[in-house]
Amino acid sequence: MIPDDFSPIKWINEKVELIDQSLLPFEEKWIHISNYTQMINAIKTMRIRGAPAIGIAGAYGLALGAIELYKNNKPKSTESFYKQLNLISIKLVKSRPTGSNLKWAIDRMLKVAKKIEKTVLIHESLIKEAKIIHSEDIESNYSIGELGASLLNHNTRILTHCNAGALATGGYGTALGVIKSANHQGKISKVYSTETRPLLQGSRLTIWELINSNIDAYSIPDSAAGHLMQKKEIDTIIVGADRITSNGDVANKIGTYTLAILAKANNIAFYVAAPTSTIDMKLTDGSQIPIEERGREEVASINNMKIIQDHIKIYNPAFDVTPNKLITSIITEKGIIYPPYNLNINKIFGGKDA
Amino acid sequence: MIPDDFSPIKWINEKVELIDQSLLPFEEKWIHISNYTQMINAIKTMRIRGAPAIGIAGAYGLALGAIELYKNNKPKSTESFYKQLNLISIKLVKSRPTGSNLKWAIDRMLKVAKKIEKTVLIHESLIKEAKIIHSEDIESNYSIGELGASLLNHNTRILTHCNAGALATGGYGTALGVIKSANHQGKISKVYSTETRPLLQGSRLTIWELINSNIDAYSIPDSAAGHLMQKKEIDTIIVGADRITSNGDVANKIGTYTLAILAKANNIAFYVAAPTSTIDMKLTDGSQIPIEERGREEVASINNMKIIQDHIKIYNPAFDVTPNKLITSIITEKGIIYPPYNLNINKIFGGKDA
Repeated sequence: MIPDDFSPIKWINEKVELIDQSLLPFEEKWIHISNYTQMINAIKTMRIRGAPAIGIAGAYGLALGAIELYKNNKPKSTESFYKQLNLISIKLVKSRPTGSNLKWAIDRMLKVAKKIEKTVLIHESLIKEAKIIHSEDIESNYSIGELGASLLNHNTRILTHCNAGALATGGYGTALGVIKSANHQGKISKVYSTETRPLLQGSRLTIWELINSNIDAYSIPDSAAGHLMQKKEIDTIIVGADRITSNGDVANKIGTYTLAILAKANNIAFYVAAPTSTIDMKLTDGSQIPIEERGREEVASINNMKIIQDHIKIYNPAFDVTPNKLITSIITEKGIIYPPYNLNINKIFGGKDA
Repeated sequence: MIPDDFSPIKWINEKVELIDQSLLPFEEKWIHISNYTQMINAIKTMRIRGAPAIGIAGAYGLALGAIELYKNNKPKSTESFYKQLNLISIKLVKSRPTGSNLKWAIDRMLKVAKKIEKTVLIHESLIKEAKIIHSEDIESNYSIGELGASLLNHNTRILTHCNAGALATGGYGTALGVIKSANHQGKISKVYSTETRPLLQGSRLTIWELINSNIDAYSIPDSAAGHLMQKKEIDTIIVGADRITSNGDVANKIGTYTLAILAKANNIAFYVAAPTSTIDMKLTDGSQIPIEERGREEVASINNMKIIQDHIKIYNPAFDVTPNKLITSIITEKGIIYPPYNLNINKIFGGKDA
């Protein structure tokens, strides 16, 4: 069993420990991150992944960077300290381009740093703020879980995509948080998880979380989801999000758009579960979201075994954008947002930019 | 280069040779089939696959069975010979349930057998008939190719799914036949092939055929097709078919329905290319087509390497049904069929059952 309070990332003794998600579920290995460069590498290689988890990892990464600056460089002026901290933050933000939470967390950390006048106190404040970001994310997910579960009927058969669970967040999960909360209420009949090519976050990570939460779970090839909907085997789809624009367009794992189109064609509710830190109020629609393209080796090999020959061209976009019109509602910790999203997302932020 | 007249199956010296499609493109190994039991095994394990190719394999398989009956059992009466031939034909037809061409070919073979009065002449007639079925299929594909190419504009960017190429047929291919013919006319800009999980017929077989036909080809995860359509990177979708009912519903590789729904949502033409031997006039709609579910190991392992743990439940339907309303037209060797399919499919068979 994985307890509901499982977290994939921990701050221990001025270092970070995170469970290597590239190895799960075959190996449960925790790796140690002792500087910001290692954190950037862990994010880029997807040892930690999921927009909210990357946000927390980025925050801890900046805290590690501040410790490094303090211990190694001993910057004389706060101005020089901020300048170097800023350079680290830029590198961290660049490590994954599509998700919103990473930049959100780094911006929040920098704001805190800039309020501290004494250089020697900055890293302590950043450690504290990163821990707050982490615990707030977990709290958000419990709220999302409760709110989302209220939308579901008894005996619901759910489809989810990729992993929007404890592993993708500070803990508990967004889409999987909703499923876990609904399961505590006895509402879940079964959950189908797409395997989520190329990196199989569905069959590896989501199924691992679901069966460890005692939920009846099935792994399916991505291409089988439509058939299940057509056969009326799915009542509801719930996915997470990497970035949501102010009009409610949602960037999420490649294949999400396809599921939303299929849901619309089959009259199936399509919910997005995400903390408000995923919402980027600076972008007015999804066409402005940068879509990360990842390397061919993710598609061409599995565990270093070649499945596609070297001379073959591969296109590997990591995300797609689901237009707001395909989304039944967006479940956030501040409430369930319904269309019209332009209006109601603005409202949830109190009528002004976050 | 693979020449246009490449065939994945050959009748040589009272035996069958076929290229092992489970090993391509990493290994080009021809296997020898000397009796009908071996043929059933080759079909079940998908060393030969694709509805028209399975039809031809079934025909050759029955010819092998007739040789075995003649040589080993020496049935005294023609009645006893027919009875045993019939038992073999039932076993052959059962080897893959969804495709239409296998039963079509076996029925045609049995009709021929029953016209022969001397037992000693039956196997010779069946060998001859199987060869005719084979060569007619190739001729059909050239016609399908020419007719289909006439539907395409210059600089067309095509998406195809699974493999409906030379490997899936007697030679040249159905959907890939159209692409090859259009390419000979200089009409093809590029072709995207879904990798087609679980068995990767797209990234292994279709890409192999396309690059060997000098066509600019890209392999994509199944889940990326929607994103490409949304970004207006695909002009036309062409797929093959395993069984078409009299109303124009089409059973084809799992994921085809999803592509058809995506095509409709994005105003992209969706063509099905198949010989009329794929059309099952006895079924009035797609809900009557048996959908084969295949074993978990196809999804859980790649080349015997485990990618999903043993205790995880997997659902692996091999096909889905695309409703006629999603299909722009069906390209057959007898002509291009447009909606209303009920009427126009009947017309192509001369107004009566085939």
